[in-house]
Amino acid sequence: MARKIVIIGAHAAGTDAASAARKTDRSAEITLITDQSVAGYSPCGIPFVIGGHIASFEDLIVFPPSYYKMMKIDLRLETTAKAINVEDKTVEVEDKKGNSETLQYDSLILATGAYPFIPPIKGKEKKGVFTLRTLDDGKRICQALEKSKAAVVIGAGAIGLETAVSFKERGLKTTVVELLPQVCPAALDRDMARIVQRYLEEKGIKIMTGKRVDEVLGDDHVSGVCVDGDEIPADLVLMATGVRPNVKLAKEAGIEIGETGGIKTNLRMETSVKDVYAAGDCAESISSITQRPILSQLGTTAVRQGKVAGINAAGGYSVFLGCLCSFVTKLFDLEIGATGLTEAMAKRVGIETVSGIITSKTRADYYPGGKQIRVKIIADRETERIIGGQIIGGEEVTQRVNALSFAIQKGMTVKELAKADTCYAPPVNETWEPMVLAAEVAMRKL
Amino acid sequence: MARKIVIIGAHAAGTDAASAARKTDRSAEITLITDQSVAGYSPCGIPFVIGGHIASFEDLIVFPPSYYKMMKIDLRLETTAKAINVEDKTVEVEDKKGNSETLQYDSLILATGAYPFIPPIKGKEKKGVFTLRTLDDGKRICQALEKSKAAVVIGAGAIGLETAVSFKERGLKTTVVELLPQVCPAALDRDMARIVQRYLEEKGIKIMTGKRVDEVLGDDHVSGVCVDGDEIPADLVLMATGVRPNVKLAKEAGIEIGETGGIKTNLRMETSVKDVYAAGDCAESISSITQRPILSQLGTTAVRQGKVAGINAAGGYSVFLGCLCSFVTKLFDLEIGATGLTEAMAKRVGIETVSGIITSKTRADYYPGGKQIRVKIIADRETERIIGGQIIGGEEVTQRVNALSFAIQKGMTVKELAKADTCYAPPVNETWEPMVLAAEVAMRKL
Repeated sequence: MARKIVIIGAHAAGTDAASAARKTDRSAEITLITDQSVAGYSPCGIPFVIGGHIASFEDLIVFPPSYYKMMKIDLRLETTAKAINVEDKTVEVEDKKGNSETLQYDSLILATGAYPFIPPIKGKEKKGVFTLRTLDDGKRICQALEKSKAAVVIGAGAIGLETAVSFKERGLKTTVVELLPQVCPAALDRDMARIVQRYLEEKGIKIMTGKRVDEVLGDDHVSGVCVDGDEIPADLVLMATGVRPNVKLAKEAGIEIGETGGIKTNLRMETSVKDVYAAGDCAESISSITQRPILSQLGTTAVRQGKVAGINAAGGYSVFLGCLCSFVTKLFDLEIGATGLTEAMAKRVGIETVSGIITSKTRADYYPGGKQIRVKIIADRETERIIGGQIIGGEEVTQRVNALSFAIQKGMTVKELAKADTCYAPPVNETWEPMVLAAEVAMRKL
Repeated sequence: MARKIVIIGAHAAGTDAASAARKTDRSAEITLITDQSVAGYSPCGIPFVIGGHIASFEDLIVFPPSYYKMMKIDLRLETTAKAINVEDKTVEVEDKKGNSETLQYDSLILATGAYPFIPPIKGKEKKGVFTLRTLDDGKRICQALEKSKAAVVIGAGAIGLETAVSFKERGLKTTVVELLPQVCPAALDRDMARIVQRYLEEKGIKIMTGKRVDEVLGDDHVSGVCVDGDEIPADLVLMATGVRPNVKLAKEAGIEIGETGGIKTNLRMETSVKDVYAAGDCAESISSITQRPILSQLGTTAVRQGKVAGINAAGGYSVFLGCLCSFVTKLFDLEIGATGLTEAMAKRVGIETVSGIITSKTRADYYPGGKQIRVKIIADRETERIIGGQIIGGEEVTQRVNALSFAIQKGMTVKELAKADTCYAPPVNETWEPMVLAAEVAMRKL
């Protein structure tokens, strides 16, 4: 009899899990459930639709309905998983008309994602206050934009900053309020974050770090926020204060939740319950550096975990080798990327570091159009191995992040990086690669 | 007494050697000799001056005279090293006025570079036939361009193609003739080279591969070349048929020349004679993959070797860890890069390979402005380690080459690359990194 695979969640992790399962077992019955009305779109693209770089939200649909047909995946939209019974190996689902059904599974994959965390700020329920996670969120914000003049974004992580940029691009007076003393606290150290903050300020975005929003003001509709007793007028407020893993279903089914709040998994992405897998934003990852559980909550981690879960759920064998949380974004014309640990994170887990920072250019000094680039390399003082990198520049940031990611994954030391073989041509970089020079700076501190 | 360091050659290797020596020994007497009238310029930039991207040849001078003053380096322009006496530890030099001098050294660094190899083609001495190596060569070609309508470039390596592009950009009818059956034979396999050739042909450059130039035609001045009995009219011919290491001085001094024709060196870049070092295009490198001697003849190798030679010559300790010949260039709007071995090279040294090729885009499918990119990954069939990579694309090629270079240097297998942690954002790449996908294709063939 055909293997029955049920997958809950149909975005990065769920869809890639379904595809991998199909490739592993041609005859499996694969059912993909989502409570949303659209599957397989890229939430990472939403800020860029808002900003006007991408024509429509529908463009973000990476896997159209025809894809699921071709892959013989039974996609069920607007269908909610109500309960999992791990003894009977069933999932109770309910469609939008309220019809219930019990789905039998041989393997179950939880790709339930995450939901925006909303801090308990007074007035947070007012009209004009948004979170940004789904296409529908994006559409609602776009509608609100039309009649808005000023926006406040609470939270200066990637989504907060990307959306703040899109608000500014759409002509709104834009303020970002961040509780921590810097922007991008999950990816950058303060020395690097300062560059990003200054750049955004030059572009006309007001940024307040180390500040708490005390209250969202207004009657029915938001009229502003109160920060440290001062009122910042706004007719649009975005709560971009992070996301939390969706683990309610798993918890209720008795599946173990890890110390990070995500679903605990082994290397095969299997949960504490046999034949139940988890992948993506709802699941824990293991840090390749500390070997401790972390929440990655990145699309790249989601698709990699989804693939591993899908292969295993379909009877194959694949392991997830850990995560460096390699990250990149583009804010106006500035690219910001990072991989591994920041110095602050390293300190928190007890790693002593040395670091080197260098500012260089993205083309030969004499070649027109070169942009500034700043590279920070972080190494463990004892092993001398690279454990982190942060890069900010006008171009060519992304693949430097990947290069450092590969270096970290293979245990490259700063000395090795300082002597590494790199390529060069005047229109595309400098003779001495800035990553190499930053490693040399770090090396001298060993 | 102060250590006396004499360096012959004042470009990439020589200048970086002098700088490294100065940083290692603050009190050394450093003499830098060049027979050219300008030191410390970037020959890699010459084709881009010819093409009009860079305003003047003088812009290519990376180290102005003030730099040598600041570093207390005694730079002697238009001074020729006539002979080395390794017993007495002296170098005979002659300035442009014909005055001779004997320089005593404690350490000597040979950074004598390479000279263009000119095949024995009939008529090669005619006016209008050029090679391209020095600023003066570039200036002569620029002058000739003014009154030229059609150019033939002999040789389809990087310099040949870069200069052919610059000729085309300057409005000349341009033909490239290559003896081997493909363009870029030192960096690309035929499958990848075809893409480059097709692109250049679409841009209006005529490319003839697998063809020999029988004769340069014309009376006093070139009027064309004869290829396979056909005449190609041309008033400008560039011989870009490779370079040979300048080893005459070394040879005459009894310094050992390696099997590649370059000066043999150990890991410290020391030659067969104590206290005599060699670096750059005149010296051999060791391939990081085969551990066999090779001629790298790249600027990046030159500066890395120069630095090692400079440190050791000044009493420090540094080793050159080998070379992958990582390479990149930009032809019109196409970036072409490679690192490690091609499949053809691997075959020649007895390595059995598997490879994977993938075509992808440089941005998310839905993000405007994305360009095509093609990645080829080559691995050793037995060890499964990556031994080479070739990348051709509209952007973001350079740092992918560096990423693969780091992967090769640290022994990453294709399986590891197929699972590697990479970063993603819609404006700068696709969710699944093409290097990762190419590795997966290769992996399936294992």
